Amino acid sequence: MKAVVYENFGKADVLRLADLPIPEKRDTDLLVRVRAAGVNRADILQREGAYGSQYFGDSSLMGLEVAGEVVSVGAAARQFAVGDRVMAIVGGGGYAEFARVDEGMAARVPDGMSFVEAASVMESFVTACEAVSHLAEIKENQSVLVHAAAGGVGSACVEIADALGATVYATASAERMADVQEIGADVVFDYRADDFERCVAERTQGRGVDAVIDFIGGDYLARNLRVLCPGGIVVQVGILSKQYEPVIPLNLVLHNRLRLVGTVMKSRTSEEKRAMIGRFAHLALPLFASGRLRPLIGKVFPMEAAADAQRAMEAGGGFGKIVLEMPHG
Amino acid sequence: MKAVVYENFGKADVLRLADLPIPEKRDTDLLVRVRAAGVNRADILQREGAYGSQYFGDSSLMGLEVAGEVVSVGAAARQFAVGDRVMAIVGGGGYAEFARVDEGMAARVPDGMSFVEAASVMESFVTACEAVSHLAEIKENQSVLVHAAAGGVGSACVEIADALGATVYATASAERMADVQEIGADVVFDYRADDFERCVAERTQGRGVDAVIDFIGGDYLARNLRVLCPGGIVVQVGILSKQYEPVIPLNLVLHNRLRLVGTVMKSRTSEEKRAMIGRFAHLALPLFASGRLRPLIGKVFPMEAAADAQRAMEAGGGFGKIVLEMPHG
Repeated sequence: MKAVVYENFGKADVLRLADLPIPEKRDTDLLVRVRAAGVNRADILQREGAYGSQYFGDSSLMGLEVAGEVVSVGAAARQFAVGDRVMAIVGGGGYAEFARVDEGMAARVPDGMSFVEAASVMESFVTACEAVSHLAEIKENQSVLVHAAAGGVGSACVEIADALGATVYATASAERMADVQEIGADVVFDYRADDFERCVAERTQGRGVDAVIDFIGGDYLARNLRVLCPGGIVVQVGILSKQYEPVIPLNLVLHNRLRLVGTVMKSRTSEEKRAMIGRFAHLALPLFASGRLRPLIGKVFPMEAAADAQRAMEAGGGFGKIVLEMPHG
Repeated sequence: MKAVVYENFGKADVLRLADLPIPEKRDTDLLVRVRAAGVNRADILQREGAYGSQYFGDSSLMGLEVAGEVVSVGAAARQFAVGDRVMAIVGGGGYAEFARVDEGMAARVPDGMSFVEAASVMESFVTACEAVSHLAEIKENQSVLVHAAAGGVGSACVEIADALGATVYATASAERMADVQEIGADVVFDYRADDFERCVAERTQGRGVDAVIDFIGGDYLARNLRVLCPGGIVVQVGILSKQYEPVIPLNLVLHNRLRLVGTVMKSRTSEEKRAMIGRFAHLALPLFASGRLRPLIGKVFPMEAAADAQRAMEAGGGFGKIVLEMPHG
């Protein structure tokens, strides 16, 4: 099969196309003919050597999410059959014509969703479902503030919170505010020009929001806690600020009975990941099927242009997922 | 009726006995002949003027928890009848021969429990149930670290965690370590001499505990988060350290998916307090009835010696609740 490989860590130039054997599947695996694969920030980190290994758990090839058809089924796999259209999270190996997929990490592609769309969904929406629905437990008529709402997970959080019937406040760069409003945010603040703490207080008449979904950390932490109503929750999904040990207003946490919870996908056990994917499938797939959630596709590149796809991500500024499309029709 | 009053804020000397009219009950109130009343730290703060008012919500008299018999029932009260033995949380007014009690803040006294015992239970055990069971969701075979475990709420947390089948680690002063072990802690650390972080790591073979119940705050916060296993929770019930804005290892919170939640009773709405008391009654009353939980009585004083009772609390060093007993037999 054709796959994207690299011999040494480095810039996007290290990527090249090669012929490799089709991966061997284990008993609980599906072998999937990959039609499209999502490009993620973690792919670039892996290529640069940030993880210290070319292996991302399961394969030295890049690519953490795929969509395609099941071509064969492991002896112990029970949920899918040959021919099924699936999307899946993989521990590497997505930039290739075939991938082995733990069936617990796969979900059925809803009717009407293309493979390119399906390849864009899981890394963003599984984490977003976990943050907005499972951890923040956002319900109809509640309110949520989503930071970095033009990012992959941020935009998925906006969509899910909106689909659950919440009032959605969001922060984004000035250039992306219209995009974020378009996907379901009720009010978008300019993260550079606006003081989100003051803006949220004004918009909620001082009540505050039920939840904040944050990717920034640092001095955002105290500000996030201050915009919560009593009993509210901050879900920390990332720390872009590089300030890993900020100050926390613990007295406010106590007196307003606030909650803080961290979440991350990478360090979880396989069992926990399967549970997350189960929750995603239960909540999000019907919403995709009904059109209430929509995949957010940015640029699409053919697999052989994987280096260009990663360069586009490195250049930044885009909106929506960057996806690779595989050659076989 | 006889009741303990004070004209001005000040030391315990300001307390004196007086004759007052029996309080008027509202539609949802019970009028209770008080047999015993718990003495709490908040009583002393109220007497000293720390709340800026002699009123603690409902009465200018001191006393936040009582036990006694129902002598009359408001028109809209449905759950209790004249003659019922009840314990209750009140918004002031406990140091008196009669108290009006919102029936949603009352619970039935289990058979075999004395009024003195019943008056010692609610302020400590309602908060402890909330922390250990409702928020930390401690289950059989889990592990929990309880700080300040010789204190009122701390000792109740030890009892509840033990009754739920958890392994209980605790910190206390050297003088109280035996008491804390006696009520159900598996291992007690000397909070001055032992490094609880190292001790817990050793005892759990590096795994850490599922939950920490903390009353200290300050630099305990980071240490508490570091002794948690992945997915673990810190329940912050108080901040004795006076350091209200400590540093938090947010990176650890993210990568170990840790949780922090604050809880406090005083600032809650009546509806929330009633819900907490409902959860307490559901969980704890059967455990008291079966002897699995035991009230912890310290010194008992007659009502007319309320000043001595408060002085005993101010002197500190005791174990178990200080209770006032009312004169009528």
